Amino acid sequence: MIEDKNQQRTSLSELGEFGLIDHLTSNFKITQKSTLKGIGDDAAVLNFDKKQVVVSTDMLVEGVHFDLSYMPLKHLGYKAIMVNLSDIYAMNAMATQVTVSIAVSNRFPLEALEELYSGIENAAKIYNVDVVGGDTTSSTSGLIISVTAIGEVNKNEEVFRSGAKPNDLLVVTGDLGAAYMGLQVLEREKEVFKVNPNNQPDLEPYTYIVERQLKPESRKDIVALLKSLKVKPTAMIDISDGLSSEIMHICKQSDVGCDLYENKIPLDPQVITTCEEFNIDSTTVALNGGEDYELLFTISQDDYPKIKGNPNLSVIGHITEPSAGIHLVTRADSRIPIKAQGWKSFGD
Amino acid sequence: MIEDKNQQRTSLSELGEFGLIDHLTSNFKITQKSTLKGIGDDAAVLNFDKKQVVVSTDMLVEGVHFDLSYMPLKHLGYKAIMVNLSDIYAMNAMATQVTVSIAVSNRFPLEALEELYSGIENAAKIYNVDVVGGDTTSSTSGLIISVTAIGEVNKNEEVFRSGAKPNDLLVVTGDLGAAYMGLQVLEREKEVFKVNPNNQPDLEPYTYIVERQLKPESRKDIVALLKSLKVKPTAMIDISDGLSSEIMHICKQSDVGCDLYENKIPLDPQVITTCEEFNIDSTTVALNGGEDYELLFTISQDDYPKIKGNPNLSVIGHITEPSAGIHLVTRADSRIPIKAQGWKSFGD
Repeated sequence: MIEDKNQQRTSLSELGEFGLIDHLTSNFKITQKSTLKGIGDDAAVLNFDKKQVVVSTDMLVEGVHFDLSYMPLKHLGYKAIMVNLSDIYAMNAMATQVTVSIAVSNRFPLEALEELYSGIENAAKIYNVDVVGGDTTSSTSGLIISVTAIGEVNKNEEVFRSGAKPNDLLVVTGDLGAAYMGLQVLEREKEVFKVNPNNQPDLEPYTYIVERQLKPESRKDIVALLKSLKVKPTAMIDISDGLSSEIMHICKQSDVGCDLYENKIPLDPQVITTCEEFNIDSTTVALNGGEDYELLFTISQDDYPKIKGNPNLSVIGHITEPSAGIHLVTRADSRIPIKAQGWKSFGD
Repeated sequence: MIEDKNQQRTSLSELGEFGLIDHLTSNFKITQKSTLKGIGDDAAVLNFDKKQVVVSTDMLVEGVHFDLSYMPLKHLGYKAIMVNLSDIYAMNAMATQVTVSIAVSNRFPLEALEELYSGIENAAKIYNVDVVGGDTTSSTSGLIISVTAIGEVNKNEEVFRSGAKPNDLLVVTGDLGAAYMGLQVLEREKEVFKVNPNNQPDLEPYTYIVERQLKPESRKDIVALLKSLKVKPTAMIDISDGLSSEIMHICKQSDVGCDLYENKIPLDPQVITTCEEFNIDSTTVALNGGEDYELLFTISQDDYPKIKGNPNLSVIGHITEPSAGIHLVTRADSRIPIKAQGWKSFGD
């Protein structure tokens, strides 16, 4: 929320479309063996040999998915990649390439796009994926980012949402609800800033949850961890819309029920204290907050000894017969049916 | 430009995000052997065995790439797929899958999106590609469509922009400039309509050029034709920005020059008459109009007998040493340097 009024502004129209793409993508390096040809032709050329290919795509829209008044463009670029890689890891696959398309209005100077692309480049470097294509065009208003992520997985190693069986354990990585509470803090500071622009926010007590909102990571490490533990989940999904919505997806597609234990849901202490401060129920936040980009998966009970005690993994419930339905078992030991709230993109 | 005021309008917010995606994609059939899993999980799963994979992406933005006052949504869906498949065919590859992401404002009712998707479905069916993924989200204004196309090509059969050699022949498919002149006619009729909404346009004399603008095809047939003729182009590109811009790309990336003969450029009679009517030079239109989605390629002179006389193919020039530069040889036999105009997306 601090704007440097003296920053350099180069108009996009000075470069033209080809010049712009060349300029923005000139830093991108090819590191994947499967990338034969990256940016610069009509299409990229890839070779996955005998591996299977996984493909996923997601779009981020200004004013709907992000607010540039508190989202730095560099972080936005990073997050756009994370959101997409997360879907690849949720297939138990390794991400290898991305394409990035951007529609941007003339109000953005070149320097803003450079920031955005430096975040994309950073994410690609850290997660070892090649940026192999894209499109940069103008929009009549705002910024839209569309990413397609491509990954590879050995035959029979892919994990769908549909393989959960009764008695399987429900496991989640990391902790939940932080990205949502980070957003609440940022929204509050934005309102304060509107009233008094000289009031610089103190975000120190909210470092973790704000970072989870602005610069999330995706769980590449978990795919590697599961491999090293020799655990193949029976079903897996990433948590983008909130725990309850993702549980519903697994249960619907696997035709099973589920008992989720409230007291097992992993929450960071900062989420708990911020929920208290905002007077919001932390379980509701974990269930419906979304944007955690953690992985939710089911494993056979036989695999439990392999994951037991791992600090990255929490067993939060178990799969039941479909007739048993989908329930939250509360701390008071009552059973409440879970309904997907998800994130209503088209709400009025 | 004829609006049915009684059409049914179902608000997008009634369905919610998941309901909307399910509803719009329920008709999509999987036909490609390489598609193991389509829509419905975190990612699609594909298997190309030993074939190479080609990937390309393009974004269409309302108010920049299309005007809904004369572009029917069904055609727009069709065109969005064509634009992307064209890039795959330009690699001498066969398109196999697409992902489609759409951002749309609440002003569009469900019925409008159904129209759009029926065009997408139609294109996928005719060109035999599977729709394997996508994202549907809201936008703060207007409609944005982002498509990623995936294709397959045998090793060593892919054709880049960079392989043209001096003395190669420059060949173009179909005819040029029609899409641009179709746009001029539609823009003129829009202005007439604004002044007098009861004045129904007579587009009969412009059927071909208007269709080239509103419902272009991509040249899948040419990839098959070249294969059957046993001709592998030395370089290839699709014509999206205009002939001059694409020639510049081939020459730059192949490090060669080119002589293009004005009198060889294929023009439909309707383009010629409409250019006369609008008092525009038809060569300028062919060079800079764009959106033709024809293929431009170079072949070795040895292959000339194989393509000679084919009604789909016109030899329009030849490749020269780089020092000779890139020129249009006019009907009056003067040599004019070619400059890329292209389509300036970021023009003020």
